[in-house]
Amino acid sequence: GNDPDKPIVTAALTGALTTRDQCEAIPYTPVEIAEEAAAACEAGAAVVHIHARTDDGAPTFSTETYQEIHDEVRARSDVVLNFSTGAIDTPLEERLDYVRDVQPEVAALNMGSMNYAKYSDRREDYVFDMVFENPFSEIRELLAGMNEAGVTPELECFDTGHVGNTRPLLREGVLERPFHASLIMGVLGGIPASVENLAHQVRQLPDDCTWQVIGVGEDQWPLVSAALAMGGNVRVGLEDNFYRPTGEMAESNADLVADAVEMAKQVGREPATPDEARDILGLEAAE
Amino acid sequence: GNDPDKPIVTAALTGALTTRDQCEAIPYTPVEIAEEAAAACEAGAAVVHIHARTDDGAPTFSTETYQEIHDEVRARSDVVLNFSTGAIDTPLEERLDYVRDVQPEVAALNMGSMNYAKYSDRREDYVFDMVFENPFSEIRELLAGMNEAGVTPELECFDTGHVGNTRPLLREGVLERPFHASLIMGVLGGIPASVENLAHQVRQLPDDCTWQVIGVGEDQWPLVSAALAMGGNVRVGLEDNFYRPTGEMAESNADLVADAVEMAKQVGREPATPDEARDILGLEAAE
Amino acid sequence: GNDPDKPIVTAALTGALTTRDQCEAIPYTPVEIAEEAAAACEAGAAVVHIHARTDDGAPTFSTETYQEIHDEVRARSDVVLNFSTGAIDTPLEERLDYVRDVQPEVAALNMGSMNYAKYSDRREDYVFDMVFENPFSEIRELLAGMNEAGVTPELECFDTGHVGNTRPLLREGVLERPFHASLIMGVLGGIPASVENLAHQVRQLPDDCTWQVIGVGEDQWPLVSAALAMGGNVRVGLEDNFYRPTGEMAESNADLVADAVEMAKQVGREPATPDEARDILGLEAAE
Amino acid sequence: GNDPDKPIVTAALTGALTTRDQCEAIPYTPVEIAEEAAAACEAGAAVVHIHARTDDGAPTFSTETYQEIHDEVRARSDVVLNFSTGAIDTPLEERLDYVRDVQPEVAALNMGSMNYAKYSDRREDYVFDMVFENPFSEIRELLAGMNEAGVTPELECFDTGHVGNTRPLLREGVLERPFHASLIMGVLGGIPASVENLAHQVRQLPDDCTWQVIGVGEDQWPLVSAALAMGGNVRVGLEDNFYRPTGEMAESNADLVADAVEMAKQVGREPATPDEARDILGLEAAE
Ligand SMILES: [Zn+2]
Ligand SMILES: [Zn+2]
Ligand SMILES: [Zn+2]
Ligand SMILES: [Zn+2]
Repeated sequence: GNDPDKPIVTAALTGALTTRDQCEAIPYTPVEIAEEAAAACEAGAAVVHIHARTDDGAPTFSTETYQEIHDEVRARSDVVLNFSTGAIDTPLEERLDYVRDVQPEVAALNMGSMNYAKYSDRREDYVFDMVFENPFSEIRELLAGMNEAGVTPELECFDTGHVGNTRPLLREGVLERPFHASLIMGVLGGIPASVENLAHQVRQLPDDCTWQVIGVGEDQWPLVSAALAMGGNVRVGLEDNFYRPTGEMAESNADLVADAVEMAKQVGREPATPDEARDILGLEAAE
Repeated sequence: GNDPDKPIVTAALTGALTTRDQCEAIPYTPVEIAEEAAAACEAGAAVVHIHARTDDGAPTFSTETYQEIHDEVRARSDVVLNFSTGAIDTPLEERLDYVRDVQPEVAALNMGSMNYAKYSDRREDYVFDMVFENPFSEIRELLAGMNEAGVTPELECFDTGHVGNTRPLLREGVLERPFHASLIMGVLGGIPASVENLAHQVRQLPDDCTWQVIGVGEDQWPLVSAALAMGGNVRVGLEDNFYRPTGEMAESNADLVADAVEMAKQVGREPATPDEARDILGLEAAE
Repeated sequence: GNDPDKPIVTAALTGALTTRDQCEAIPYTPVEIAEEAAAACEAGAAVVHIHARTDDGAPTFSTETYQEIHDEVRARSDVVLNFSTGAIDTPLEERLDYVRDVQPEVAALNMGSMNYAKYSDRREDYVFDMVFENPFSEIRELLAGMNEAGVTPELECFDTGHVGNTRPLLREGVLERPFHASLIMGVLGGIPASVENLAHQVRQLPDDCTWQVIGVGEDQWPLVSAALAMGGNVRVGLEDNFYRPTGEMAESNADLVADAVEMAKQVGREPATPDEARDILGLEAAE
Repeated sequence: GNDPDKPIVTAALTGALTTRDQCEAIPYTPVEIAEEAAAACEAGAAVVHIHARTDDGAPTFSTETYQEIHDEVRARSDVVLNFSTGAIDTPLEERLDYVRDVQPEVAALNMGSMNYAKYSDRREDYVFDMVFENPFSEIRELLAGMNEAGVTPELECFDTGHVGNTRPLLREGVLERPFHASLIMGVLGGIPASVENLAHQVRQLPDDCTWQVIGVGEDQWPLVSAALAMGGNVRVGLEDNFYRPTGEMAESNADLVADAVEMAKQVGREPATPDEARDILGLEAAE
């Protein structure tokens, strides 16, 4: 389970959909990403969650790019590396191949299907409206691939059913306890963002598992604050939200990490270091 | 909201996936369906939820068949008619066309996407594993079509996010409060079946809305029992579960309705008649 | 924890405040109580909860009377014996002495202080308004006495704090896990009766503990129904509620037990026998 | 209900049980209290909650002292005045008399009976163990007295049942909606401190009511943080907790208020001014 004294702060450095038009600080190249990773770690992040991008910012699952990111980060920091496997409309094999080759310590894994949409109250229209497809067949194949490659899965749960989807996977043995759950809130199509709903999601989890909250968009800081109060881990970073609690746009991922660290201290918790995070998550110690 | 004294019992007479190989009592033809409807109503159901089927039991969205069902039921009973609009791999237009023409009082509407799967503990395998796609674009078109046709939607919510999906629809005005929610539990991919989770789903709903529980499979009766104790409405019937609380296979939908009625009485509630249900649901009185 | 297949049905045969003016079937004398116990057990109760009364129905903590009840019940039935230790305005020693001497298998223990009141909506007045005092000093002394006498405590929890009061008792060792909690609902001053609140109380308990719901007054049957659906144990009987689900006054405790047994079967559960209950509760087998 | 943008921060300046031996900053005399009140208001508190004390720090319900506190505070600040009416072993009349005479804007009112205890894990003993008696007869008399005097009650709810106790009071009309609830957590005997339990208590309240969390002791800051994230109001101050989030002892109530204000800002909320608080609570504007 989570450590009551030491929350793990994860920085989601770049994402796949965000652009520099929206926020200048978003890193694209492996070197840019690695610089952000090192600074985020310096500010208190124990884990960085990374999507590879081309030099123009387009999403890519290129093994070469992920390897470069891996090496550039490792040259600068011992932060725990967590890579993405999620995308809409990219074949499974492509998303899994690089995981086998680059072997990040942790890889994120989407735990179910859902609408993935955004509605703008201001424009009174849907900004996007997609079906995010993650059937069991793909979840199982990704888990099997990670197991083989020695990569620890981080289960991205966008709704109550996504947590429930662990049941058959545990039963067939492709997933084992304790597992690590991300409780994502604030994506239209998934569970709405509220402290009440966060408490509900936490109740779905076995006691031995760990969890973090991922708040997407403007509701992020209240969820981070509540999760820290509940003994949870938290994710912040430019993938999820550009803005600091004050309302200013962040100038770096490290800015956002620093804000989360400050909040952790206010409830008497001191962020875990990368090695403490490895211990909590059951990862092998860094070489 | 729901009536504390008078629960609405709905009978889901046939479904689309069940077969007579599994349970002999499943009606296929319009006349068979109408006979089951009348008997279910006699036993205490105020509403019947119906999927049209060919004479061989295959699912169909034929206007002619739905019209025939409508007429055969009406010839026998004043039960409230609720027709399905859901299917995997049937184009939206086909599912909506017949609604416009036949104009049932209520039509069911799936409120989001999800994995729709079944895992057999005994066989240690997935019986089926599908992605049930219901993007906002389709939900909106179905709602708009129903609004035009004067058909009241019944919102089928398989997870917490599906309830949350009402928010933009209310905002743009294609959906209005009070709405009617079905809280479906027990489908792998959606929210797991538990009384705790049922209470959570009910908390998501505005007070002025009505709700029923739909328990799929073996967890149905505890959910029916709990929902009746909570002041909710309930759905039973061969679409959802073949077995009576005693473990025997039902010989008719009326058997299952009679069991639900008995449970309602045990918590001091007397099932609503069709006209009382119309009143609770805000439907026009039957001619 | 509770047995998912076999609920324990307890019959609270007589209470201390109820009178024959209110309900003729209430037993007063040891022989009357024993006859009711045997019939309740025959109907499916595994446990009987008993308050001793004088032949006129006044409450008493007389060792002699409790011994007589013990012997008369044992002459007729192997039902598990659970005796009361609670009263307003009776000194602790008096309530504990007889426990040491008669050594019932289980004794009920009130876990905290509260207002104990009743408001009549009809009369628009308080029927009674008392402070029910159970300070830690008394709880500890009762627990120590029961431990010495080999009597298993049943923890009567009227509110969330009463469950929380187990914490220091466990820590100092006067109470051990797994313990047995009664979640009492419907007394004005304690937690209000609702399925939502029952789910909340259950969440407060460690997984290894057992629990039953005790619904006082008119909200009893919905709570019994919900508790059975949730995998809980239940208490019924003339101490708590005179009326059957149909609204008729019960002619015996066995009537009420039969109704609870019927409800258990409807959610697929078969009531535990006395020996099965002993096994679930960790009591020694009957000689 | 609460204002989503503007939390009301209350400073509980002194309490009745705390002493200068424990924390030097605790004010005793009316002037000391008034100085703390003005500084707390300056730091962002909209309300001060006050217990009168003699110059030696002993609790008192002297009208003269309360009047002096009232006048000294008013000479320095327009902060909302909330006075205590609670005590163990002080007759009701004494606690009510001064309220009639001094007429603070708000008076706190304990909503039920409970054990009021403290257990020291370190010393492995109970620091104190009392029964806090607040029968309905006293609650009603206090409410009637406040109504007559034009004083608004703040309902101190230490457990779920205490919120439920509003029901008969609303029905007989001695209490009216919307009311103002304090959800107190962390007193042994009442509801245990957790975010889960806070969410539960909030669910008990009608939507039109306002609420604040009062966290007693070391669990205070996580509860403050969570309550702010949930849209709630919060109370801090030397009555409840001497320590700042950093673990240092506060040098003044204003220190603690400043910490709460900082937390509010981190979730995008700006504390209400005294007049904004009056508006939210439905109090008359200050002259
Ligand atoms: Zn990502
Ligand atoms: Zn259907
Ligand atoms: Zn009793
Ligand atoms: Zn106070």
